[in-house]
Amino acid sequence: MSSGNDRISAEERLIARYFSPLAKHPGAFGLSDDAAVLAPPMGHDLVLTTDGVVAGVHFFPGDPAADVARKVLRMNLSDLAAKGAQPVGFLMSLALPAATKKSWMARFAKGLGEDADHYGCALLGGDTDRTGGPLSIVITAFGAVPHGRIVRRSTAKPGDIIVVTGTIGDAALGVKLRRTKSLAKTWRLTRAMARHLEERYLLPQPRNALAAAVLRYASAAMDVSDGLAGDLAKLCRASVVAAEVDVASVPLSIAARAAIAAKPKLLERVLTGGDDYEIVLALSPARLPAVHAASKKAGVPVTEIGRLRKGRGVRFLRSGNTLDFSRASYSHF
Amino acid sequence: MSSGNDRISAEERLIARYFSPLAKHPGAFGLSDDAAVLAPPMGHDLVLTTDGVVAGVHFFPGDPAADVARKVLRMNLSDLAAKGAQPVGFLMSLALPAATKKSWMARFAKGLGEDADHYGCALLGGDTDRTGGPLSIVITAFGAVPHGRIVRRSTAKPGDIIVVTGTIGDAALGVKLRRTKSLAKTWRLTRAMARHLEERYLLPQPRNALAAAVLRYASAAMDVSDGLAGDLAKLCRASVVAAEVDVASVPLSIAARAAIAAKPKLLERVLTGGDDYEIVLALSPARLPAVHAASKKAGVPVTEIGRLRKGRGVRFLRSGNTLDFSRASYSHF
Repeated sequence: MSSGNDRISAEERLIARYFSPLAKHPGAFGLSDDAAVLAPPMGHDLVLTTDGVVAGVHFFPGDPAADVARKVLRMNLSDLAAKGAQPVGFLMSLALPAATKKSWMARFAKGLGEDADHYGCALLGGDTDRTGGPLSIVITAFGAVPHGRIVRRSTAKPGDIIVVTGTIGDAALGVKLRRTKSLAKTWRLTRAMARHLEERYLLPQPRNALAAAVLRYASAAMDVSDGLAGDLAKLCRASVVAAEVDVASVPLSIAARAAIAAKPKLLERVLTGGDDYEIVLALSPARLPAVHAASKKAGVPVTEIGRLRKGRGVRFLRSGNTLDFSRASYSHF
Repeated sequence: MSSGNDRISAEERLIARYFSPLAKHPGAFGLSDDAAVLAPPMGHDLVLTTDGVVAGVHFFPGDPAADVARKVLRMNLSDLAAKGAQPVGFLMSLALPAATKKSWMARFAKGLGEDADHYGCALLGGDTDRTGGPLSIVITAFGAVPHGRIVRRSTAKPGDIIVVTGTIGDAALGVKLRRTKSLAKTWRLTRAMARHLEERYLLPQPRNALAAAVLRYASAAMDVSDGLAGDLAKLCRASVVAAEVDVASVPLSIAARAAIAAKPKLLERVLTGGDDYEIVLALSPARLPAVHAASKKAGVPVTEIGRLRKGRGVRFLRSGNTLDFSRASYSHF
């Protein structure tokens, strides 16, 4: 029939063209139903997390579409990694301004599909809508952990060593550089250093390769996305422990070191800025060798930065002095 | 400690104040972790759905905050009901303009909590962000169905009877009334009729009370949210069947009947407009008595509107003629 009664809507066409090919999970029904179906693997729980981005808040409107897609998926994958979970799949809700071009959608879907394949996290379903505001994307991701084994924030113990993955503060500096290009000169950065910091903001590197080790060895863990200082404070509050961090041990990239050397005040930005998408773990000291071995195997560096003690509060120590930050973590509010 | 290192962020305060009290599911960890954990009841699958609203697109910016919260949750609950699933919990992602008032948040959280309790669908987690655009809310809801039993769109059979819940088209008329108050006069509506139509737009009545019957008796089902004509066409395409609908049988409210009597052209709007949040079911005729009994018990009216046949396409028949709509369903695109 060619009547309006049976015509496929523009929304259906958009989904069929760009997103159905990504719906490789059998429970997605090829995005042809109201809902998806999912059961965790036998003996496992599902881990659920949701994170969204808004153009102009979490990314620059001109950022490559493929990187925007990857960023929002990776923000969610980072939460799964920090909980020791293996990715299973995700739902996505898109609110698109009327001006969104087909070429943008095609590049967005391509980037999303590449990361979905790479991380083993298939599209399960979603929702697309128009918005009168900026483009925004919400992803809800699902992971699997053995039943009862999700790695919590609240289970760290006095005596545990504090470990972080990767390097801290790059993205917080990168977003400043994106806003004010001339800072690269002020901070005495080479072009490669500036690019490194900007790319760390544009595209997080979630540490899913280390998730199995987090599950096996961490007494507690969380993803570092709102600044190391504030996120570690959350972990300590949840676990009712105190932390002492040796600032000199916090892993920094060459670029971040250079910027701090030029402008020492940036140290606070590095320790309290957001968008790291690293993991902070609390570990019994006996497990440190096993974690270092897993780190080497996964190709994800880990660094000891301090120790948990009885008590409350987080102290960042430098040359015997305690740093006091004007704010502990990034907050949009 | 009173240093910035340990200060609770404004986002944490917002969550703790308004949303942690709603996180009654043990897997939500009181919203104090990166992620939630969920396992379906033994022998069950999880059904996943996501639906969002944007101020100015899906609701009017001045709508009561409690009703906005309920609407977005109920849009998701309607998908669960149509799949035969019992609600389990939900995640919510909020993008808030800077001007959002505390009193708005309090009323929003109150409405959300009341519906979460009423429908047995607890808050599991979420994400809050700032936006430079309109307020927007995305909910991802989880339901449970016995393993392998999710009710699909694609499993209807020739010979099945088509049944819909409630009444059709009220919300599509209600949103027109909201935009142009003077239409109430043109459509010769009493004040009570106009209010009925507007309220059907403001606050959907998802048919979760009928979900167990959908699971037990429907050969296929879907939620009617983008217009009966277009949604039934989707079900028919998925099931590779044709449908004949007797337009005179489509259940209409007294208000919708009055409006159509005054302006016969509104019939198309009623049959193709969105926001019904009813369920369309395909049923073997032998199961009709059981469905009527379940309908009576649940207090959710069901009405036979037509029949599925071999072939393709959906025909809406009135006095022997086939109606041909200019568009079959509501689409934002």
